Amino acid sequence: MALTLEQLNAAPLQGAVAMLEGVYEHSPWIAEAALAERPFASLAQLKHAMVRVLAAAGEDAQLALIRAHPELAGKAAVSQQLTAESTHEQSKAGLTDCTPEEFARIQQLNQDYNTRFGFPFILAVRGPRGTGLPRREIIETFARRLANHPDFERAEALRNIHRIAEIRLNDKFGHEPALGNDVWDWHERLAQHSDPGYAEQGQLTVTYLTDAHRACAQRISHWMRESGFDEVEIDAVGNVVGRYKPATEDGKYLMTGSHYDTVRNGGKYDGRLGIFVPMAAVRELHQRGRRLPFGIEVVAFAEEEGQRYKATFLGSGALTGHFDTTWLEQQDADGITMRRAMEHAGLCVDDIGKLRRDAARYLGFVEVHIEQGPVLTELDLPLGIVTSINGSARYVCEMIGMASHAGTTPMDRRRDAALGVAELALYMEQRAGQDAGSVATMGMLQVPGGSINVVPGRCTFSLDLRAPTDVQRDALVNDVMDRLQTIAQRRGLQYTAELTMQAAAAPSDPAWQQRWEAAVQALGVPLFRLPSGAGHDAMKLHEIMPQAMLFVRGLNSGISHNPLESTTSDDMELAVQAFSQLLGQLAAEMD
Amino acid sequence: MALTLEQLNAAPLQGAVAMLEGVYEHSPWIAEAALAERPFASLAQLKHAMVRVLAAAGEDAQLALIRAHPELAGKAAVSQQLTAESTHEQSKAGLTDCTPEEFARIQQLNQDYNTRFGFPFILAVRGPRGTGLPRREIIETFARRLANHPDFERAEALRNIHRIAEIRLNDKFGHEPALGNDVWDWHERLAQHSDPGYAEQGQLTVTYLTDAHRACAQRISHWMRESGFDEVEIDAVGNVVGRYKPATEDGKYLMTGSHYDTVRNGGKYDGRLGIFVPMAAVRELHQRGRRLPFGIEVVAFAEEEGQRYKATFLGSGALTGHFDTTWLEQQDADGITMRRAMEHAGLCVDDIGKLRRDAARYLGFVEVHIEQGPVLTELDLPLGIVTSINGSARYVCEMIGMASHAGTTPMDRRRDAALGVAELALYMEQRAGQDAGSVATMGMLQVPGGSINVVPGRCTFSLDLRAPTDVQRDALVNDVMDRLQTIAQRRGLQYTAELTMQAAAAPSDPAWQQRWEAAVQALGVPLFRLPSGAGHDAMKLHEIMPQAMLFVRGLNSGISHNPLESTTSDDMELAVQAFSQLLGQLAAEMD
Repeated sequence: MALTLEQLNAAPLQGAVAMLEGVYEHSPWIAEAALAERPFASLAQLKHAMVRVLAAAGEDAQLALIRAHPELAGKAAVSQQLTAESTHEQSKAGLTDCTPEEFARIQQLNQDYNTRFGFPFILAVRGPRGTGLPRREIIETFARRLANHPDFERAEALRNIHRIAEIRLNDKFGHEPALGNDVWDWHERLAQHSDPGYAEQGQLTVTYLTDAHRACAQRISHWMRESGFDEVEIDAVGNVVGRYKPATEDGKYLMTGSHYDTVRNGGKYDGRLGIFVPMAAVRELHQRGRRLPFGIEVVAFAEEEGQRYKATFLGSGALTGHFDTTWLEQQDADGITMRRAMEHAGLCVDDIGKLRRDAARYLGFVEVHIEQGPVLTELDLPLGIVTSINGSARYVCEMIGMASHAGTTPMDRRRDAALGVAELALYMEQRAGQDAGSVATMGMLQVPGGSINVVPGRCTFSLDLRAPTDVQRDALVNDVMDRLQTIAQRRGLQYTAELTMQAAAAPSDPAWQQRWEAAVQALGVPLFRLPSGAGHDAMKLHEIMPQAMLFVRGLNSGISHNPLESTTSDDMELAVQAFSQLLGQLAAEMD
Repeated sequence: MALTLEQLNAAPLQGAVAMLEGVYEHSPWIAEAALAERPFASLAQLKHAMVRVLAAAGEDAQLALIRAHPELAGKAAVSQQLTAESTHEQSKAGLTDCTPEEFARIQQLNQDYNTRFGFPFILAVRGPRGTGLPRREIIETFARRLANHPDFERAEALRNIHRIAEIRLNDKFGHEPALGNDVWDWHERLAQHSDPGYAEQGQLTVTYLTDAHRACAQRISHWMRESGFDEVEIDAVGNVVGRYKPATEDGKYLMTGSHYDTVRNGGKYDGRLGIFVPMAAVRELHQRGRRLPFGIEVVAFAEEEGQRYKATFLGSGALTGHFDTTWLEQQDADGITMRRAMEHAGLCVDDIGKLRRDAARYLGFVEVHIEQGPVLTELDLPLGIVTSINGSARYVCEMIGMASHAGTTPMDRRRDAALGVAELALYMEQRAGQDAGSVATMGMLQVPGGSINVVPGRCTFSLDLRAPTDVQRDALVNDVMDRLQTIAQRRGLQYTAELTMQAAAAPSDPAWQQRWEAAVQALGVPLFRLPSGAGHDAMKLHEIMPQAMLFVRGLNSGISHNPLESTTSDDMELAVQAFSQLLGQLAAEMD
């Protein structure tokens, strides 16, 4: 019999502790301390209470917890001394069926890892629907994490312990994240379509209007119909648009969605999560035969990443009336114009102008997106409320000094281009750190043709500066550019700085942001606000209607534009629940 | 009738000023102020007195002097309004014979240069023996200097003005640097031999035992015989050894010399100056039939640069008994072993061991070398005394952080590898600057595969650390390495640092250094001491006998390992005179 939250909330403390036995390996004190916060309104709330107990317990207690875990396929597993939970998990992951080579490899990794970090390697090896991670993936992750910094790896071990606890709690409470699992499966199936050259290597790449891209559109449109959308169409730029009608014909629409194209060798969730989460919520409405005072228009945008053509936000841009027809003559790397690619895909180029939406017919735009950053995962929070999509400016620069002999040029007679850039890099870091929400990055840095014994005469670098408002961004840009000039002057250097991109900030609409906040709080999930450093389709819709975004935690430090991008079906479930809450609140407001 | 220094020294001030009329364009005040220092013992002393007057005159006076000069092939030239001196110089350089295209190009350069710097382009267009620089070279130099920093270019204009004054003074005093001109010509002729693939492009590359290298040896041996050396041979490693015998059979030898191999696409003077300067001095002795109480052994070392094989200082190493026979099996890029290359060149590999010199039969080793650095040229000094050949250590390093999204990773959650390296670079600069004579360089610096919107996860870099003593170098290395560790720890980064080279310092022998100092002062040239940042053959000889070096000014900021490496026949003349002085002093000491 599965536990219920009511039972847990009602039980005497030691009884409740016993109910949570084994959730944290050999460490009942975590549950015991968390239970002081009863009653819990949701499993999510209980989980986070335990996360906070461990965070507050200090490093010694955290290390003790980590060390209370068995090695993967280690001695304890071989001699059958694991807890029941660990045995179950390691067996699901097939770790009891290793080949001799795999077993030997894991033993070596265990040894190396323990030597390096002083604690065992911990990985939540159970995937969604109780399946185990493939052994190959476990071994690859093990090897990759061996190279991490010790501080980081300790935090990563704790995150995995919390994920293990989440899965164990789900088992105890008979909680299956059914909506999250479906969302997970849609991502998995859509990721089977990938462009030639990438598909063969198991990499995900879906660029505008390739065969794989068109197959994705077709599949999404099929799932939308299946989910109960009243109207589904692939529009003139390849957006897949599903409409779930309002209760009355004259009802306005809430627009939502995100993009289904990807970067090259990207992740499965970037963009797509914002299509499938609302799709699952609409399916719930449809299955319950429920209509709201407003319609829901879910748009799977055809293009956001600007990979095949230089035009970005092409899908959302068409809806805001910002599709630039000169883009049609842009050529891809094979010389194929966008117009030809669109005609080849059977899109009606002449109808693009008609895609422009009349903002008066919409309540606003909301977008769900994987965070693509480390904030939520480092705070062990599943969801975050976006306060603004940061404005940004990008520069490609070169510092020019004078190359000279590293041995014979005294320190005070140098015009070292790289040192000028180093000074700017540190200023940029310090200056961005002064602001709330600003970030500054020198992502490209190189002394071209540098030699060990030559003082750098040139140094190329890039600047990527972002802030939650345009005013804050402009102040950051001005300060960094002023400092660049000052440094160059003082060091006798010259420089070039070319602005290659500038995007306005898109602050969230207060009312819509507040709706997301209420939705998240209703789930018992702590409220956390953060700016979005990356651009999103919501940035485009911002030009014609109010918007606000919800972020979902990404694993692996929130890595994105990378195959390691990941999240869990539990977090997906929470996102669907939050979206449904938002719909419910809005309906209540309008009643 | 040419002037004499005696006339100048004896004349009343205004008469003397009149004698020096036109040396500095429209600016008699320079000569007038310098004449307060009469009597002058040498032209070199007079020249430097005028250099000091201008240096002390301040920026306004310097700019006025620069602006007193005509443009190259400019309006004044066209309308024949130049001074007699300028007309002569511009015509020698063929600037009066420009093609229409060249003329148009020069006019455009004049205009761009004036716009950028606010003064006319000044270049000493007369080469050695009164020849003019080729027009093509003038135009290339013009275009190159247009890109310089304004501060640097103002100094470069003044340096050219001093060079023009030097040539004009030579004319007035009928002073022809005859020895310097011969040394100049030897360099020119030797530079006609270059390795295949470089020769065709007009580039100078002479690597160990190529056809060009063997032709150089042959030519040097020929010139040595012609100059009156008693014994000349190409030894078992390809060194060309010339011996000028002592007055008595049992006399010891002074060894001198430098290398005749080059780096790829190198300069004409690196190494070779240290062969030809003593050769000219010995020729003087021979022509006067003079024998000294000691013999002179001039060695043109076959290999110093380590270009074809990894072994460096192969030529001087053979003389100190440090030829490592395992080197013989090293292969070049084409798979040819050193042994095979030596046999192909007819060298007696078995005799290499016999090349080892008995230090008891030598007084010491001196070496003349182009500075390969900016110190002398920036101080307008033709010669410098080397205090020590710096000890050095080189590292190739990598900083490892964690790549993440530039937009979504807050500043306080980054593990930016490049910022850690930037911090180290600035520390390294500041730390080396604390020492007298230490230098530290990060010559290689790169974020591999960096993207504008990705926080750098890796950053590769090099460190080249040098100091006049091993103790000072070790302290520098330790501090930089400690800081590397501190930075990595604080920023949560990891790193690797591989020591790829370490060389002990070779302080000059005090007695020999003092002989160079006396020799330079005897010429009326100001005394200036500096460490050598680069390694030299003297470093190897240092292992078995006392040594000291003399540096000769390099033009173009002292650039080396580059076709722009340059000096003048006047500086070469002074070097030969200094070398002869040193021989004379030593003879006097021994008498």
